[in-house]
Amino acid sequence: MPGLQDVTRGRLLYGGDYNPEQWPPHVWTEDVRLMRDAGVNLVTVGVFAWAALQPAPDRFTFDWLDTVLGLLHDGGIGVALATPTASPPPWLGHHHPDTLPQGPDGIRRLYGSRNQYCPCAPAYRRAALAISSLLAARYAHHPALRLWHIGNEYGTTCHCGHCAERFRGWLRDRYGDLDGLNTAWGTAVWSQRYGDWAEVLPPRRVQYVINPLQDLDYQRFCDAMLLECFTAERDAVRAVNPAVPVTTNFMDTYRHTDGWRWAAAEDLVSLDTYPDPNDPGAAVRAAMSKDIMRSLGGGRPWLLAEQSPGAASWRPVATPLRPGLHRLWSMQAVARGADGVLHFQWRASRQGAERWHGAMVPHAGPDSRVFRGVCALGRELAGLSDVVGAAVPADVALVLDWDAWRAVELDHQPHFAFRYVDRLLDYYAPLWRDNVTCDFAPAGGPFDGYRLVVVPNLYQVSAADAARVTDYVAGGGTLVVGPFSGVTDRDERVHTGGWPGPWQELLGVRVEEHWPLPDGSPLDIASPLLGDFTATRWAEWTVARGAETVAAVRGGPLHDRPMVLRNCFRAGTAWYVATLPEPDALRRLLRQVCAEAGVTPVLPDLPPDVEAVRRGDLVFLLHHDTGRVEIRREEAP
Amino acid sequence: MPGLQDVTRGRLLYGGDYNPEQWPPHVWTEDVRLMRDAGVNLVTVGVFAWAALQPAPDRFTFDWLDTVLGLLHDGGIGVALATPTASPPPWLGHHHPDTLPQGPDGIRRLYGSRNQYCPCAPAYRRAALAISSLLAARYAHHPALRLWHIGNEYGTTCHCGHCAERFRGWLRDRYGDLDGLNTAWGTAVWSQRYGDWAEVLPPRRVQYVINPLQDLDYQRFCDAMLLECFTAERDAVRAVNPAVPVTTNFMDTYRHTDGWRWAAAEDLVSLDTYPDPNDPGAAVRAAMSKDIMRSLGGGRPWLLAEQSPGAASWRPVATPLRPGLHRLWSMQAVARGADGVLHFQWRASRQGAERWHGAMVPHAGPDSRVFRGVCALGRELAGLSDVVGAAVPADVALVLDWDAWRAVELDHQPHFAFRYVDRLLDYYAPLWRDNVTCDFAPAGGPFDGYRLVVVPNLYQVSAADAARVTDYVAGGGTLVVGPFSGVTDRDERVHTGGWPGPWQELLGVRVEEHWPLPDGSPLDIASPLLGDFTATRWAEWTVARGAETVAAVRGGPLHDRPMVLRNCFRAGTAWYVATLPEPDALRRLLRQVCAEAGVTPVLPDLPPDVEAVRRGDLVFLLHHDTGRVEIRREEAP
Amino acid sequence: MPGLQDVTRGRLLYGGDYNPEQWPPHVWTEDVRLMRDAGVNLVTVGVFAWAALQPAPDRFTFDWLDTVLGLLHDGGIGVALATPTASPPPWLGHHHPDTLPQGPDGIRRLYGSRNQYCPCAPAYRRAALAISSLLAARYAHHPALRLWHIGNEYGTTCHCGHCAERFRGWLRDRYGDLDGLNTAWGTAVWSQRYGDWAEVLPPRRVQYVINPLQDLDYQRFCDAMLLECFTAERDAVRAVNPAVPVTTNFMDTYRHTDGWRWAAAEDLVSLDTYPDPNDPGAAVRAAMSKDIMRSLGGGRPWLLAEQSPGAASWRPVATPLRPGLHRLWSMQAVARGADGVLHFQWRASRQGAERWHGAMVPHAGPDSRVFRGVCALGRELAGLSDVVGAAVPADVALVLDWDAWRAVELDHQPHFAFRYVDRLLDYYAPLWRDNVTCDFAPAGGPFDGYRLVVVPNLYQVSAADAARVTDYVAGGGTLVVGPFSGVTDRDERVHTGGWPGPWQELLGVRVEEHWPLPDGSPLDIASPLLGDFTATRWAEWTVARGAETVAAVRGGPLHDRPMVLRNCFRAGTAWYVATLPEPDALRRLLRQVCAEAGVTPVLPDLPPDVEAVRRGDLVFLLHHDTGRVEIRREEAP
Repeated sequence: MPGLQDVTRGRLLYGGDYNPEQWPPHVWTEDVRLMRDAGVNLVTVGVFAWAALQPAPDRFTFDWLDTVLGLLHDGGIGVALATPTASPPPWLGHHHPDTLPQGPDGIRRLYGSRNQYCPCAPAYRRAALAISSLLAARYAHHPALRLWHIGNEYGTTCHCGHCAERFRGWLRDRYGDLDGLNTAWGTAVWSQRYGDWAEVLPPRRVQYVINPLQDLDYQRFCDAMLLECFTAERDAVRAVNPAVPVTTNFMDTYRHTDGWRWAAAEDLVSLDTYPDPNDPGAAVRAAMSKDIMRSLGGGRPWLLAEQSPGAASWRPVATPLRPGLHRLWSMQAVARGADGVLHFQWRASRQGAERWHGAMVPHAGPDSRVFRGVCALGRELAGLSDVVGAAVPADVALVLDWDAWRAVELDHQPHFAFRYVDRLLDYYAPLWRDNVTCDFAPAGGPFDGYRLVVVPNLYQVSAADAARVTDYVAGGGTLVVGPFSGVTDRDERVHTGGWPGPWQELLGVRVEEHWPLPDGSPLDIASPLLGDFTATRWAEWTVARGAETVAAVRGGPLHDRPMVLRNCFRAGTAWYVATLPEPDALRRLLRQVCAEAGVTPVLPDLPPDVEAVRRGDLVFLLHHDTGRVEIRREEAP
Repeated sequence: MPGLQDVTRGRLLYGGDYNPEQWPPHVWTEDVRLMRDAGVNLVTVGVFAWAALQPAPDRFTFDWLDTVLGLLHDGGIGVALATPTASPPPWLGHHHPDTLPQGPDGIRRLYGSRNQYCPCAPAYRRAALAISSLLAARYAHHPALRLWHIGNEYGTTCHCGHCAERFRGWLRDRYGDLDGLNTAWGTAVWSQRYGDWAEVLPPRRVQYVINPLQDLDYQRFCDAMLLECFTAERDAVRAVNPAVPVTTNFMDTYRHTDGWRWAAAEDLVSLDTYPDPNDPGAAVRAAMSKDIMRSLGGGRPWLLAEQSPGAASWRPVATPLRPGLHRLWSMQAVARGADGVLHFQWRASRQGAERWHGAMVPHAGPDSRVFRGVCALGRELAGLSDVVGAAVPADVALVLDWDAWRAVELDHQPHFAFRYVDRLLDYYAPLWRDNVTCDFAPAGGPFDGYRLVVVPNLYQVSAADAARVTDYVAGGGTLVVGPFSGVTDRDERVHTGGWPGPWQELLGVRVEEHWPLPDGSPLDIASPLLGDFTATRWAEWTVARGAETVAAVRGGPLHDRPMVLRNCFRAGTAWYVATLPEPDALRRLLRQVCAEAGVTPVLPDLPPDVEAVRRGDLVFLLHHDTGRVEIRREEAP
Repeated sequence: MPGLQDVTRGRLLYGGDYNPEQWPPHVWTEDVRLMRDAGVNLVTVGVFAWAALQPAPDRFTFDWLDTVLGLLHDGGIGVALATPTASPPPWLGHHHPDTLPQGPDGIRRLYGSRNQYCPCAPAYRRAALAISSLLAARYAHHPALRLWHIGNEYGTTCHCGHCAERFRGWLRDRYGDLDGLNTAWGTAVWSQRYGDWAEVLPPRRVQYVINPLQDLDYQRFCDAMLLECFTAERDAVRAVNPAVPVTTNFMDTYRHTDGWRWAAAEDLVSLDTYPDPNDPGAAVRAAMSKDIMRSLGGGRPWLLAEQSPGAASWRPVATPLRPGLHRLWSMQAVARGADGVLHFQWRASRQGAERWHGAMVPHAGPDSRVFRGVCALGRELAGLSDVVGAAVPADVALVLDWDAWRAVELDHQPHFAFRYVDRLLDYYAPLWRDNVTCDFAPAGGPFDGYRLVVVPNLYQVSAADAARVTDYVAGGGTLVVGPFSGVTDRDERVHTGGWPGPWQELLGVRVEEHWPLPDGSPLDIASPLLGDFTATRWAEWTVARGAETVAAVRGGPLHDRPMVLRNCFRAGTAWYVATLPEPDALRRLLRQVCAEAGVTPVLPDLPPDVEAVRRGDLVFLLHHDTGRVEIRREEAP
């Protein structure tokens, strides 16, 4: 099976999206020259070129692409060729209005923007497969071709009749018959029982709260339909030349596509990431995204497919990256396993909705701060070939689960602002600040080789997944579980008899009630081990059943309820955290856990804001503040 | 006519909604056992059971309900049987899409949630009447049956063609002909004159503000249609066994259904109430709701039909009730006239949109804080049979008027945030804090026997209602009228010549202009009698015409305008308050008024946060804070 | 060509909208009497009278209007007669649903409010022209008629099929063929290329950001269609009696209609203005609106067509004007060039959505504070005939451009809250505070005779307009240009090679990057000339290319970047301001610029809150605070 190594061929990749169809041919020549100046060796071509390649249903214009690919190849620049199916031309929507997606309100979304397709519409599927197949037939053996880039940032949803029809089929596959569906969806509640498959619909506009599993299943279904779209195009290009690897570009922490399933369907993992330079948490969020990408690929190198050297135009306040930040964040990607740093895009578009998006060649032209920085970074990356293919070691795994994410964010959960990604960051951030490198793992593992497994939040848990976590602790592992976990099964049926459902014995605790807290009413928590602290937004009515109380509430209705518990379970140790402690307290807790589990940082005692990551034989030291720090390497005694 | 006494039979009712269709039969047996442990003697069955009873248009399955009613009866537990018409099965919407309600945007609301019916759709009306009649035919003489519970929390609105047709008929009945409609709606404004009945429509999506009386009349019409739905089902069940009383469950201060009209149509009044444990004003709001229920029933006992012993799942932050709060609020209901305390629901649903709603048997099961509290309360209520049927005496009546409420909250009123329920609370809360028990009364009275009548706000007033209030004062009564009152007639036509329209002589004041105030600009008001105070959001350009000025503005454009006036009118006294004083000032004012009118508290000089209510021979003392207070009964000297 | 002088005939106009169709005839007589008491000499009749004049498609009722015009004429009161086409009767929408406008969501807006017409619907156009022509035929020579008032506050938009068809024609006229359209709209971006005119649509609901020029062109097109509606009715009335001048009423700073184009199409300019008495900036906003009106008419007198002597009913908090404020703002209009002060409306409506809008005769009636003030003002204006027709001199011109305004507020601009009117006020307000009178001018001038031209913001600039500004400076003028200017061409194509595009040489600066700033992160700026100051929200990465740096950033990523630059260009001076300085700093800057350019205030050294404007031989002194000030006239030495 081909992989990123077939693209890198020993060199870090550097480049960006290239949209020559927006420019006259004389610019193409200048582009290749400037790319060479900048050290570019891979560009992504054709992402939005469908209308340029097929201006009418029965007319094709590949000649310009022939020319461009030839110029690039002559310049020594490799190509990631895209199937252009993320943005159909207006003619598709005009001739096949049923390819235009409908909102839950039944209103169709028109062309004039992008992404206006229903993933279930047969006419869309046919047209997308046709253009992809033609591209494959023409270019799959082109010498410039290094990589197939399928679609773009998959994520479109639709609620139309085509979707309803496919949804019924998907449900039939999942639940067998209507009785199965009625049982799973709990339609005995609110008189929702279905008597005929024809009655079953996507969630559309309703009077009040929608059935939660109908909502969740539709999210799962939409994901599956997009994956079908991807797979069909992947197969079409692979069929012509199986040696060329295939990818599609993921977005930062994106709920709609299940990373584990998608990563399994592609040859290498790619990420589009746009940290906000105005967000003080940008570095840690970016680090987490990057660790997730590495983990989705099973530890193999991944590709940074898009970032901006300037502004991200969709931000309400689109501040550009300050000098140095583009280099810093690029290096963070390489440190955390990326074997390539690409951008959206090569040359800033003069027109269209993204005309204010940063680019390697900005509107001001090559004589600019930005382009000079791009060239400097290109030179620097060219000197880092040693890390190509190298691994990033980690002793800690955080559990990441898309279904539990979607479920915990359904409507009418006990706290409307309980957000899954915040929960991940609660635990990832203190570990990152202490330079403890983390992988991510699915809810069912495997967890072999990790000294510590952290489950920041796992609202839905199946018996099988629960058992694997239990086995991990039983075998000597250390586990930390965060609040509102083990609450429902995969059909969103509440575990009765107390929570965290199947983990009560493992954790030595029984939760009787969830206790969301209004803003402005922090809990006061006492802990001899961790020091006293406060917690907000969430608590639980816990009853210790064998676990040792590490921290308990002081005062108020939850007085004396344990909020942090430690339980010795067979050969291992399991912690339960029933609330959302203030960040410093959670950091102290995780330091304690790491110390007990034998987890150590990449380098100890670094100044604040210095990130350290080991990759292969190198340790990357990344300073996220703008002042100067000095770090001395101590000689071994 | 049957009433609540036919349900209580001398004992306070205790129980909740019971949805056995969500559980396998073996749970039913456990349920009856647990109900007996808890002292439950009434459960509401079948509220959302339509699909369980009629899984297809032509198929009926009553056997499970036969079994359940038998089990309950054998266990000595009475049944409030519901007509299940609040939530039609999917087949109704599927076969009759015209039963699905349309928003003002014309978009239909689908099944998958609940309440998806158009109250005017003939197919819905037929189906609802059919299932209700079948239930009546089968169970109206069942020995377990104590009460009919029609529908659930009526409140659905629709804007479809069926509604348009019925709306025209309703308007024709009200206004006679098109000239009458054009005159009433003031269609000379903005060129809205109707020349043909076919042109007349519900308020739908428009470019700018809708005609205010079109909006208000549509609210009145929707209320009337829902009442028709209720009445049809009531008549169907009453026809089979007139001895069984009929009710439907109201919601806390709900604008869409006119409590006075609805209460007149049922045998007893029921309330669903969900105070927010995070709201510092929860106790006073709850007390007001309960006093309203007692008043709607003319002082007779009423039924607390739904509350939660835990969380209310639809709250953004669904905090459960702290220990003791469930008991406290239940006792408040009994103190204020309830002869029963029911809950939504008996056993927590494992599935569906309300799986996080509190229940008497929570997810954790009977071994839980909540269920133990439920059992303790059951025992306590069983010991309170003395109050069953007893009255709650009150010397004060507050005027409550649904039409004025709707009108004062129409679009483009002078202050967008002038809310009717806030105005009621302005006056109710200080009286509650001083333990002065209040009834509520319609705008036209009767006011016989009250020492004090308070009109917190009455934007719309008819000549007839105005005259009754005037007569009350003329006959020696004391009256307080709040701001923005007496402004329009019942057709929303502004009273000209100054306000409060027909009450200028009664109150001895003429208001020339309303003077809404922006936030952050309080009025400074001087009053030798009440002490100086501030007021916010609302003032008026008043001119005293005979009344004595009790408080007047100091500084600013309204300098010297009277804000509180007292007028001797024949044998009585009438106060006018033209602004929204700070709460303590209004409390001082009402103490003054009560003292002059001879109104006294239930008990004087109680500590703060202690509520005292007399019911029959008992005085209930309810402490709303969590600390301890000691109250000693003084011996009569 | 007729003008305002044909209406005034030497007297300031005074009056308001008069809607007799809302009142019985006996009120008409009282109205004329009260108008005479108040000094009213012009009323606007018939704005919303379409249904009263044509109650059915084939029925007309002009008799009441004959009577009213006769009564007015007999009372010596002139009439501005309206074509009533802003609010079609229900029968039009009922018989021609395609005249009802569609939102971008395809949902039609119904009657029941006002403005429910599609400007492109042929049936609307026909009906509007027909009623206008009949009015003209009947009244164009009526002795009371002084002025035609076409429509009302033009501004309706629609996205229906009629609009789509006309939009295609408009685009064809603009861009020639589909290639032209594709080139202009940049459809190579995101695969939006159109292959057939039938594919081209208005911007409707889309998945993501709309094509920016599609959006902008649709705004231009909607403006053009409304102007067509106006022009057709104007021509119809003019054809019958060309001696009667024609106007339509503009709204305060309203983006949807291009004032320069509209003013050129009418005989005189009119304004509806409703400053918010709770807005501390009301006086300066109002002054700016009034100066814009004078400028749109090329310096000729204009008409204040609507204001309120009380509240504006559409405000969320509709506070009335405090005593004195109605007089003050009326005088401000006269001072700034108005030859008439009219109101909406004469007599407060008892019904309808605007029943809480202030009026000359309020609900309380003539015996009221408001009506007494109205009469006093009438007397005062009658004594000011000297200013009728007089000019308001100004040495400064601010550039005002509707297309640039629309473009800078498109979606996904670098800062979502960069608002054009705020930018105008940034520069207008300090000049106003210093009593420097300003005109407004189009982007292409002419600028002859101005000592100073200010371009607060001009995001779009054409080569031709840019050249005219350059010529102005070259010829000795002084120019100030604000940030984010010279950025795109009129087809919204970004100027490459640095900004402000064609003005880099003129201003001696090259901007490489725009640098929007998040809230809470002010820039620290050092300036020996102006004193240090802070700036917010916006900055730029500037490189001085010949200009002198007047102020530069201190610290942070933009350290040392010039933020204020002064460039000597041929005989003139050009300043560039790359950020949004705090108001006092911009005031110091403008004082410096004025001093250098020889611009002086109307009167120097006035107390704060005193506004001075010269009109003809008079200087108006307007005190905007409520205290007292004393201003002494110094004798010439």
